Amino acid sequence: MIVHNGHSEGGSVATATGLLSAIADVGTDRTRGGFSRHVFDRAEHDLREWFVEQARRRGLDVHSDRNGNLWAWWGAPGPDAVVTGSHLDSVPGGGAFDGPLGVVSALAAVDSLRAKGFTPSRPFAIVVFAEEEGGRFGIPCLGSRLLSGAISPDVARRLTDADGVTFTEAARAAGVDPAFVGRDEEALGRIGRFVELHVEQGRGLVDMDAPVGVAESILAHGRWRFTFSGQGNHAGTTQIGDRTDPMLPASQTVLAARWAASGVDGGRATVGRIVPNPGGTNVIASSVDLWLDARAPNDRRARTIVERITAAAKQAANTEGCRVTVRQESYGDTVHFDADLRDEVSTVLGGVPALPTGAGHDAGILAAHVPTAMLFVRNPSGVSHAPAEHAEPDDCEAGVAALARVLEHFSA
Amino acid sequence: MIVHNGHSEGGSVATATGLLSAIADVGTDRTRGGFSRHVFDRAEHDLREWFVEQARRRGLDVHSDRNGNLWAWWGAPGPDAVVTGSHLDSVPGGGAFDGPLGVVSALAAVDSLRAKGFTPSRPFAIVVFAEEEGGRFGIPCLGSRLLSGAISPDVARRLTDADGVTFTEAARAAGVDPAFVGRDEEALGRIGRFVELHVEQGRGLVDMDAPVGVAESILAHGRWRFTFSGQGNHAGTTQIGDRTDPMLPASQTVLAARWAASGVDGGRATVGRIVPNPGGTNVIASSVDLWLDARAPNDRRARTIVERITAAAKQAANTEGCRVTVRQESYGDTVHFDADLRDEVSTVLGGVPALPTGAGHDAGILAAHVPTAMLFVRNPSGVSHAPAEHAEPDDCEAGVAALARVLEHFSA
Repeated sequence: MIVHNGHSEGGSVATATGLLSAIADVGTDRTRGGFSRHVFDRAEHDLREWFVEQARRRGLDVHSDRNGNLWAWWGAPGPDAVVTGSHLDSVPGGGAFDGPLGVVSALAAVDSLRAKGFTPSRPFAIVVFAEEEGGRFGIPCLGSRLLSGAISPDVARRLTDADGVTFTEAARAAGVDPAFVGRDEEALGRIGRFVELHVEQGRGLVDMDAPVGVAESILAHGRWRFTFSGQGNHAGTTQIGDRTDPMLPASQTVLAARWAASGVDGGRATVGRIVPNPGGTNVIASSVDLWLDARAPNDRRARTIVERITAAAKQAANTEGCRVTVRQESYGDTVHFDADLRDEVSTVLGGVPALPTGAGHDAGILAAHVPTAMLFVRNPSGVSHAPAEHAEPDDCEAGVAALARVLEHFSA
Repeated sequence: MIVHNGHSEGGSVATATGLLSAIADVGTDRTRGGFSRHVFDRAEHDLREWFVEQARRRGLDVHSDRNGNLWAWWGAPGPDAVVTGSHLDSVPGGGAFDGPLGVVSALAAVDSLRAKGFTPSRPFAIVVFAEEEGGRFGIPCLGSRLLSGAISPDVARRLTDADGVTFTEAARAAGVDPAFVGRDEEALGRIGRFVELHVEQGRGLVDMDAPVGVAESILAHGRWRFTFSGQGNHAGTTQIGDRTDPMLPASQTVLAARWAASGVDGGRATVGRIVPNPGGTNVIASSVDLWLDARAPNDRRARTIVERITAAAKQAANTEGCRVTVRQESYGDTVHFDADLRDEVSTVLGGVPALPTGAGHDAGILAAHVPTAMLFVRNPSGVSHAPAEHAEPDDCEAGVAALARVLEHFSA
């Protein structure tokens, strides 16, 4: 395993691939394949410890902010800082790159800048955001939402995971005082420019034959929880005509999601999580929870998709004699990254292409508050949120070089 | 709490309701409601310990057979025995009566027979069968199937629960040597007549205005596991046209189950358990497992239902570009309980009505090997496999009296 690719006056220089190899055993999921690393769980805790150790080796001062995000400062913290970073958590059964690539590339970029004798002339930090995937508590970008005030601390404190553990309890156990989560003026106010590097989650760069690109926009997107209620009963003794089985309208809603998204240009709608209660083979469910992920190029289209699915869900529930409630768990309108900054970054990198994405990112949350840019690294298959997610080592190192160049430019 | 309703020369006499109250705290499920008591888990272990203690208080000798079924003998074990009993495990989030009512009624019936000075003139045992619901390892009546040779020991040993624990591992941890599970000639050969008391899981007795009835037949029934495979990917970046999402054909299969059962007289088909993998909100599933429970008055109709659902599943999978595999996990043809024994029992009880059921029981497995009868106790709502399952205390005691009368008749 090559963790370092050279030595110089500034110390050893890590590669992104080498650093990823070092954490390839953390949070592997034997049931699903890939990785399951969720905020404040054992795997994510181990990744945080590993990041702290890596930062300290580089002489960076690390602290956790009020919302459980980690900050590693190169030099003294201060205003107008250049900040880069991403997240270490994953979706359940996710790939190795989504999140960690941005963190390890930041560490490798610091090595590379140091090796050439560069010292930033303004405050500089690497940030690791908490719960970007919403894999445990359901709200994506929870750390950056809390930091920027995009979610109320009361709502966050009451979130629960699949085992009924509250965010309050999990945060406290991880050493984050739940009384103080919420908008963090100090942390937010220090960010002068933010740049996040991320593996691409589509085939845009493959089609453009480019290893690295800059982000143009993020689709409007959100999550809605549909709860269907009927009458739990015995699967063998209850005649078909006597049933109010919530699995029926839930299934029709999955099909409606496909139909509704297909009817809206650029729309996407997905049900990847469905939980019948109690979940026994010989039991008619008493209730079913399903989560809808819906996205579209603009707010109006996203709303249209969700309205059509909701109408279909209500009609299907009615037909079966069931009830349905729909709750929006998160939503963000389309993000258009700062066009001047995007063009500046592209120019610094010799004219790399700009491209939109359907994936949400902490950079999308921060873009509402501070000048923000994103770099994407080519993904040969485009597959993401799955064990097959991949980026070639050469492309990863091209990403590190690009990130280092952008950070050098911003920090000069 | 009234555990005993009187004392006499034969010792104290328990009530079924009182005995159920004594175990009302064991295995309560805070998430689903009701009870989750699964074979060899903590709750079921505690119920077994409780049963052993109750049997010992009554001077019964208890032992576990090779398949983890408990036997409590009144007097010496031997051939041509009169055996009664049921099970202590539940479906996930099940009711208080399904299973335990038959066990506590057996204990109360022994008290009642003793109190009147009766001593059986032939061997007599109470049996507690393991994993009747198949709630942990997927195969209903696993204990009685193993005992009677209806399932191969190799197949049973390889069964896994939702956490990947094998039956072999769970049995060993519970003190059952997995090397010796399988057909038990000695235990089976001792049974002269078997009678199981059970809460009714429908409204047959309500409509007949009778607290107790005898079983006529059990529907043909089985379980099939459908596994749909597609391409796991990112819910935001993957365009609708590029998806092979196994949630689509899985949902169409749920709807097909309803349609197929509706088209067959007396048919039932249920999907109460569905597990997308990896199960993330922002993740297109790579695969989906769902379990079909299908039942009908005869084999031909049950097979027709499953064939139609399978055809619909294959067509839906094809349309989405997914694959589907279908595996039968268990199946049992229609059970017609011994008509002479049924009539004899009904006559002994003063002409109580006979009725069919859609629910499977250990008695249905044993009926292929030994003369077997079942008693049902009225269920006012008919709801079962749900926390709302109920039987009135007076009806429970009528069940105990009826069971005692039948056991006395058989044992004389």
